[in-house]
Amino acid sequence: MTISRSARIGVVTASDRASAGIYRDESGPAIEAWLTRCLVTKFEILRRIIPDGFESVRDTLVQLVDVDGCDLVLTTGGTGPSPRDLTPEATEAVAHRHFPGFGELMRQTSLQQVPTAILSRQTAVTRGQCLIINLPGKPASIAVCLDAVFPAVPYCLDLMGAAFIDTDPTVLRSFRPKAG
Amino acid sequence: MTISRSARIGVVTASDRASAGIYRDESGPAIEAWLTRCLVTKFEILRRIIPDGFESVRDTLVQLVDVDGCDLVLTTGGTGPSPRDLTPEATEAVAHRHFPGFGELMRQTSLQQVPTAILSRQTAVTRGQCLIINLPGKPASIAVCLDAVFPAVPYCLDLMGAAFIDTDPTVLRSFRPKAG
Amino acid sequence: MTISRSARIGVVTASDRASAGIYRDESGPAIEAWLTRCLVTKFEILRRIIPDGFESVRDTLVQLVDVDGCDLVLTTGGTGPSPRDLTPEATEAVAHRHFPGFGELMRQTSLQQVPTAILSRQTAVTRGQCLIINLPGKPASIAVCLDAVFPAVPYCLDLMGAAFIDTDPTVLRSFRPKAG
Repeated sequence: MTISRSARIGVVTASDRASAGIYRDESGPAIEAWLTRCLVTKFEILRRIIPDGFESVRDTLVQLVDVDGCDLVLTTGGTGPSPRDLTPEATEAVAHRHFPGFGELMRQTSLQQVPTAILSRQTAVTRGQCLIINLPGKPASIAVCLDAVFPAVPYCLDLMGAAFIDTDPTVLRSFRPKAG
Repeated sequence: MTISRSARIGVVTASDRASAGIYRDESGPAIEAWLTRCLVTKFEILRRIIPDGFESVRDTLVQLVDVDGCDLVLTTGGTGPSPRDLTPEATEAVAHRHFPGFGELMRQTSLQQVPTAILSRQTAVTRGQCLIINLPGKPASIAVCLDAVFPAVPYCLDLMGAAFIDTDPTVLRSFRPKAG
Repeated sequence: MTISRSARIGVVTASDRASAGIYRDESGPAIEAWLTRCLVTKFEILRRIIPDGFESVRDTLVQLVDVDGCDLVLTTGGTGPSPRDLTPEATEAVAHRHFPGFGELMRQTSLQQVPTAILSRQTAVTRGQCLIINLPGKPASIAVCLDAVFPAVPYCLDLMGAAFIDTDPTVLRSFRPKAG
């Protein structure tokens, strides 16, 4: 295998209160800790804390993908029924292609914990060679969702032509099917 | 808790035959009976029996939400593969935001009964501060679907700023997560 | 029952390599073999092997439905994350109505085999009186997905006004609910 470049991973917290400094963002750090625990390949994190809302999320995603060259962007917050929850709309607005299986599996997994999991409108899309995944806002739910969908992410990035990443199989077994 | 206003719940039967008086609507009454059995908070029902089709459903939904001020609208009928089944299209046409988890869970639950559950194109959306949920047309399937998704509805209305509703926990346990 | 006309079933392989003759298409024949094994009613197959990509798939689907009068079209290939995988986009571009339950069930069933099933963006739609279903590209996955969703297909075609088809119940039990 050739030595691969470091993956660039955007982590976006969409929260009016966190971005205004009213409380401390715990979701972004939870994602970063999860990635640090699971990934064995080199990566750098680009952290953003922004207000909820369509424009702020949309513009941040475009910047992270088109300008900063991210291979993967994970968002947290803004996926529920509150009026300011517009992260899925912003994500779909920048999408080139849709991956409904991510949202389906995250909701299905979260449903085993709380019946309100169906209120989460999370989705995943690609924009160019970047995969964007919406995660829930609560730190406890973030790990549940990442554990569910991340096994498919390294192979997805391979197919998209994004950076090579791999997980520690003793922490999270990712899956690359045999070629064919 | 402050005394809350009565919730307004629209119940829309989309059926060419029922609206023409060819047969008696049993689906609307089934929804009303289910709500009466489950809800312990005050509510009033706005019943509509209309022909199938895009325009009739769309216009009825807009009226119930924008003019009549409904907090929740439940539709029945028009979600299958028949040429006149256009309730999901009409629902999406009036949507401000989409909640794919409702349709996913209703189909998954109905699949345990009949393999044709995948033909149901049900969805749920919000328009302003109103939640609109498509239910199947058959009375027996209505209860199955409401039992599956309604536990999340009271909390959803809270977050949207709609009326407060609550269920009799001995009939259907709804779920409000702790704030956080 | 009146003697019914033969069903016309389009089978579309979207693959740059197969259409260029670089390797032999195995997916189209796998679909054809599955249909031959399961269907007891008369049908004719219209096979197409085309390059990946939005326009080629879109134009082929329009031709098969609008000109060739297919009742059912099954596609294989082009549903993953590779840049040339645009079959779902092309399918949605020709859709009159969407049937999200097919993709949900195919992904859910495939997930029991591989975690990368969530990368499959398969959907099903109707265009006029034709049902179009996206299947995965790998022959082994095709049978898994057809076994999962096909029990609902004969009844779907009934409701749409397409040709009558039926399966051998000792091979695959399809389901037609009692009228009501």
